[in-house]
Amino acid sequence: MAEAIVVGGGIMGLLVARGLRASGASVTLLETGQTGREASWASAGIIAARAPWTTTATGALQNHSASIWPGFAAELADETGMDIEYRQNGCLYPAFSDDAARQLERDARDARAAGFPLEFAAGSALRAEEPALGPAIVAAAMGPGGNVENRRVVQALTIAAGLAGVTIQTGTSVTEISSTAGRVTGARTSSGRGYAADIVIIAAGAWSSQIKGLGLDIPVRPQRGQILAVAQPHPAPRRVILKDDDPYVVPRVDGRMIVGATREFAGFDRARTAGGIAWLLSAAIEMVPGMAGSELLDIWTGFRPISGDGTPIIGPGTLEGLFFCTGHGPSGISPAPASAEIVVAMVESRQPPIRAEAFDPRRFASR
Amino acid sequence: MAEAIVVGGGIMGLLVARGLRASGASVTLLETGQTGREASWASAGIIAARAPWTTTATGALQNHSASIWPGFAAELADETGMDIEYRQNGCLYPAFSDDAARQLERDARDARAAGFPLEFAAGSALRAEEPALGPAIVAAAMGPGGNVENRRVVQALTIAAGLAGVTIQTGTSVTEISSTAGRVTGARTSSGRGYAADIVIIAAGAWSSQIKGLGLDIPVRPQRGQILAVAQPHPAPRRVILKDDDPYVVPRVDGRMIVGATREFAGFDRARTAGGIAWLLSAAIEMVPGMAGSELLDIWTGFRPISGDGTPIIGPGTLEGLFFCTGHGPSGISPAPASAEIVVAMVESRQPPIRAEAFDPRRFASR
Repeated sequence: MAEAIVVGGGIMGLLVARGLRASGASVTLLETGQTGREASWASAGIIAARAPWTTTATGALQNHSASIWPGFAAELADETGMDIEYRQNGCLYPAFSDDAARQLERDARDARAAGFPLEFAAGSALRAEEPALGPAIVAAAMGPGGNVENRRVVQALTIAAGLAGVTIQTGTSVTEISSTAGRVTGARTSSGRGYAADIVIIAAGAWSSQIKGLGLDIPVRPQRGQILAVAQPHPAPRRVILKDDDPYVVPRVDGRMIVGATREFAGFDRARTAGGIAWLLSAAIEMVPGMAGSELLDIWTGFRPISGDGTPIIGPGTLEGLFFCTGHGPSGISPAPASAEIVVAMVESRQPPIRAEAFDPRRFASR
Repeated sequence: MAEAIVVGGGIMGLLVARGLRASGASVTLLETGQTGREASWASAGIIAARAPWTTTATGALQNHSASIWPGFAAELADETGMDIEYRQNGCLYPAFSDDAARQLERDARDARAAGFPLEFAAGSALRAEEPALGPAIVAAAMGPGGNVENRRVVQALTIAAGLAGVTIQTGTSVTEISSTAGRVTGARTSSGRGYAADIVIIAAGAWSSQIKGLGLDIPVRPQRGQILAVAQPHPAPRRVILKDDDPYVVPRVDGRMIVGATREFAGFDRARTAGGIAWLLSAAIEMVPGMAGSELLDIWTGFRPISGDGTPIIGPGTLEGLFFCTGHGPSGISPAPASAEIVVAMVESRQPPIRAEAFDPRRFASR
């Protein structure tokens, strides 16, 4: 039976650990802090398809993942009794000018022709669907998707992984991967302790590139997202609203509305800034004017793992037995179940469920 | 020796209690919560003159108070050892258009002619004085004033009042003033307990009008102010910046910069709202663009006591022995020492330090 170590206890690490354990491997997950408390915790939990909806590798990854989410949510409820509040309330893509509206209408037609159900609406038809929208929005496309309570997802996954027999070591920071003759032998922590393993999966998010001994210099850096929650106005949007250049607006089942997020390169500085919050609130109020009177409930920040070329890093590295599942950038919750499926399949030398060449970590090997 | 009850432990009540005690009265201060934790706590601590600087009763009150503040700060330091961080860093009144600049220049000339030192500056002279100002500000007038750490003021005053022998009862909510034959006899609390007194001073801020038995229906209601603190940018403004219709910006000695405040009628709802915070941040960033990158440190709300005609309510009521010191609206810290002087003088049948007819509570007696 294989001995596997998963480095990182966010949604990616937890999913991979649970998946490998389900196949009979002995799995230890090592997490610096508590599980699920970094990017997975800071997320807005959007489960969306991605434009262009049908052609890119990342689009295919998200679309495949979207098909997994309903069953995955049901599985987690079965395994743990916990409702992760996955809701297929749909996604809305707004246009703020007549030009943008015409382009959106064409995009929707193209998407439908390719089999992706994206509807276009303007004027009274749009207002009837979404009375909460402000006058700045002249038209919108509406498609499938929704949102999930990401904090409950990682909590449920932690429980599920534990029930499945994954050994979870929190407060344990992996600093180096050990290897001999091009083959992984384990991991070493900041306290100097070594863990032996045949398989190591790097799922350490924005911190992934700080680990030594990876055999390849993966370009992942932290992108700060400032994000906040307000009380839902009346009327509230029904759908997740996804503005091209953010902010997005996510109505949650618990009565909150999430507004996110800035995309900033500020190292690991967790500051919430005056400019960031001013922009989030002002731009979101333009989309949903009723939220001006909504109580501001919370503001937080997170660090998304941004890969050097903007595409996730999923699959084997250059050392035998080493795999990556990181670099998902601003959209990590949505593709997570699919990304984990890919990694687990590759570890087990099975065919991944979708083509995954675009995500190959070895594309950075010659840097 | 007179027995006095002060209702309310904000800056007004604490100052009046300390002042009466200094004259030998036996003083009990009754406060619903903790002393200083309502409007006095929420304030930005601006010590400013008020436009028109020389002609109105409120302007005269603030100007007289400004002359008291330096000595008062020194007294509190002597009495308690506590530095209340009073700093005469000056006040700046910005103009955002050439028209407004011309008006401001005339105002400054008029003010100087009346003996009030208000300087006008534009262009490079203004930037040399205040490099933190954004390009939206085309000119400014600059006068005396500054700011104080209002939370330290009420903490120091609580200590000083206690040392002087004031009996402070916190957690004690006065619901009714007792009187016989048009003369005050004491106060009754929500627990049913009665306190006997010859003199009662109502300094209960936005809650003043909720007390029964006042003998006159004083029009005071809560005006919500949302207010926040960011880390000071570099360069930071040197002066308090007072925009006509808010927000104001207050650089504090502790490295924070206070930005306040909304003026909303929302009852006693303490919510911080999306629209309020968006407006504060955006408008303040226009004045001080460097703060866009500043860490947002805290957001809070407070309830200012707004009087029916916008003028403070200071002096005797219609019941013998009953006095008021409330209704100061958005500017309560600045005039507080002068307002307390007026009340104490009136209780002791002395001439107040400035004319106080405009503040007479009995103007509301015939309502």
